[in-house]
Amino acid sequence: MEVMRRRIIFLGLSGGALPIFGGIVLSTERLNRIIEIDERNLQATVEPGVINQIFRDAVEEKGLFYPPDPASRGSCFLGGNLAENAGGPKAVKYGTTKDYVLNCEVVLPTGEIIWTGANVLKNSTGYNLTQLIVGSEGTLGIITKIVFRLIPLPTQNLLMLVPFFSPEKACEAVSAVFRAGFTPSAMEFMERDAIDFVLKFVDVKLAVKDEHKAHLLIEVDGHDLDALFKDCEKITEIMYEFECDEVLFADTAQQKNDLWRMRRAVGEAVKSHSIYKEEDTVVPRAELPVLLRGVKEIGAKYGFKSVCYGHAGDGNLHVNIIKDTMSDSDWENKVPLGIREIFELCVKLKGTISGEHGIGFVQKSYMDIPFDASTLALQKGIKSLFDPKGVLNPGKMFE
Amino acid sequence: MEVMRRRIIFLGLSGGALPIFGGIVLSTERLNRIIEIDERNLQATVEPGVINQIFRDAVEEKGLFYPPDPASRGSCFLGGNLAENAGGPKAVKYGTTKDYVLNCEVVLPTGEIIWTGANVLKNSTGYNLTQLIVGSEGTLGIITKIVFRLIPLPTQNLLMLVPFFSPEKACEAVSAVFRAGFTPSAMEFMERDAIDFVLKFVDVKLAVKDEHKAHLLIEVDGHDLDALFKDCEKITEIMYEFECDEVLFADTAQQKNDLWRMRRAVGEAVKSHSIYKEEDTVVPRAELPVLLRGVKEIGAKYGFKSVCYGHAGDGNLHVNIIKDTMSDSDWENKVPLGIREIFELCVKLKGTISGEHGIGFVQKSYMDIPFDASTLALQKGIKSLFDPKGVLNPGKMFE
Repeated sequence: MEVMRRRIIFLGLSGGALPIFGGIVLSTERLNRIIEIDERNLQATVEPGVINQIFRDAVEEKGLFYPPDPASRGSCFLGGNLAENAGGPKAVKYGTTKDYVLNCEVVLPTGEIIWTGANVLKNSTGYNLTQLIVGSEGTLGIITKIVFRLIPLPTQNLLMLVPFFSPEKACEAVSAVFRAGFTPSAMEFMERDAIDFVLKFVDVKLAVKDEHKAHLLIEVDGHDLDALFKDCEKITEIMYEFECDEVLFADTAQQKNDLWRMRRAVGEAVKSHSIYKEEDTVVPRAELPVLLRGVKEIGAKYGFKSVCYGHAGDGNLHVNIIKDTMSDSDWENKVPLGIREIFELCVKLKGTISGEHGIGFVQKSYMDIPFDASTLALQKGIKSLFDPKGVLNPGKMFE
Repeated sequence: MEVMRRRIIFLGLSGGALPIFGGIVLSTERLNRIIEIDERNLQATVEPGVINQIFRDAVEEKGLFYPPDPASRGSCFLGGNLAENAGGPKAVKYGTTKDYVLNCEVVLPTGEIIWTGANVLKNSTGYNLTQLIVGSEGTLGIITKIVFRLIPLPTQNLLMLVPFFSPEKACEAVSAVFRAGFTPSAMEFMERDAIDFVLKFVDVKLAVKDEHKAHLLIEVDGHDLDALFKDCEKITEIMYEFECDEVLFADTAQQKNDLWRMRRAVGEAVKSHSIYKEEDTVVPRAELPVLLRGVKEIGAKYGFKSVCYGHAGDGNLHVNIIKDTMSDSDWENKVPLGIREIFELCVKLKGTISGEHGIGFVQKSYMDIPFDASTLALQKGIKSLFDPKGVLNPGKMFE
């Protein structure tokens, strides 16, 4: 785990922590205390170097739940989760990191130490400095304490895997579930290639037929198992309307664990295969089929292959572009043009260029697509206000 | 309704819309179109002058739900709801206005027109300009379009009214419900005086015994009526642990409607009785009994009477200070000292000075309590960045 942790500190998923101009890399690794789990108020105060999984385990022991669960939850820091506004599979029902942060202590580049808000569930007192810090990727201040709200731990969940003969039908089915009034606690999409990569990477057995072109992994959670079974039945009926093959229910904890291990390892599996670029596209949920088709068409135009998977319930599709046998010259020159077209398509569909990975270093040259001159100027102004000397994480986001 | 609407345009609940230096008052009354209800994506785009109730009815017709429901929902504008980050009884389960805003079109004081975000459920692309506009009380820009996310409409709900012999025990019971794993869709507190005022103001019949010193109004909602009845049973058991009198279940739609009409009219009832000041205190939920006791002690010290009620599930207590027979001199000189002490107590308890009403004009002299010089300077810097000439809503919040 140590190796992985170090890797994520220095890279993240958008290169936000790379010291591209040299300087000092500040690690919060030793600020790793869970200061308090306040069971009376369903809140917790932590330092930024606490690993997401360690925190979620600690609160679960007290019957509480911290939903945000990025795939890297075994290694990523909560401070990093705030900086990037991390999501994960549960976001579709429970929201992202931003929805759980009530307040944070921040060291400003000027040396001042502030608290951004108050430890309350409702706050209409001044500008929302807390949400300005969340997602600011280390460019406005250094988060040194975080107050989270927690919720009661759902005691039951059911998990099912649905194979589809068409990736686009799978995407269409996603939207239909929500329109029918259900809010699953996870609604994950994996196209065929993602499954193929991951089954070579993890020791999970899964019978996949040649004609299965995509899968949805659907979880429902709550307190009443009977009610959840009913929901699953109705969701299954909706699935069959979109021409899926037989739905697989995870009967045991082991099966559930295997399916989740598989889903979480997709990213690593694809990356272990080849040099890659990961894009974190996001669109309104019902536009997913259009986005997926567009990604493939753009790939064909520029000669690259992509593996798509992600949080379909949120309209958040991870597009892993793999180099494979592509020439270095095409990789360097053609792929960025294709990425630009993909992002332009996202924005045309009223989406944007990052759902949960942040902009960091690797996406910053695309910031002119979601933002016009006015909104970029406002962001640069906010940066100058917090960090007049530009000492924090230079060269990131829009700089 | 016309009269009430006009009154709220010009006053709000914190005087944010008062033209204290003269100038132009900009009404968005005629920007009142629901531009689109997008059933595929569970989103809606509206103009700021749409009345909250008109919007909620329109989306309910399509089986969708827009939760934020301030007491003034029959007259208040969605644009104002954004400007103040309005809450309401449903916030305890569903969050406040800020949790439903995905994106907004804003006219900046410089004349530029921007969109603050994208129409997506997850967004890690640049600073969160959307949440900077929400709660900015008209000081940063003029909201001209809003994109909301919607959720499936809960089809069932149950409502109960619980009388307590002690207001503090009622407050303690609130916290116990959440600790036991329940999240009611409303958890409202009314102390005895609030009930007395309101029963004279609305034509609702309710048998209140002399020894009833406070009430909790508790609603649960969802899709499965059996599950809700089970929840109510368990919540009732918790209530009895805190020495309540017999729990009243609302059996009919009429009874539910009456109880809600009663709760929503408390503010107006108190205000119709006397000159008043309304404070919008908020603390971590379990600190409510401490806050309530503190408010009464501070009142006794400075010689004023207060009527307390509000969204106890969120720790959000409205404190209506009534002038009644108090002398003008005491009202003007002593009461502000008492309010300052109440707010200091809120902040000491890790709370703050407004949960859902905003700062506006009437609370601005207390902004030194929740904020230190650094956080005030940041807010003033943000104001200058958006509005370099200071033309928008001058003299509000921290100015």
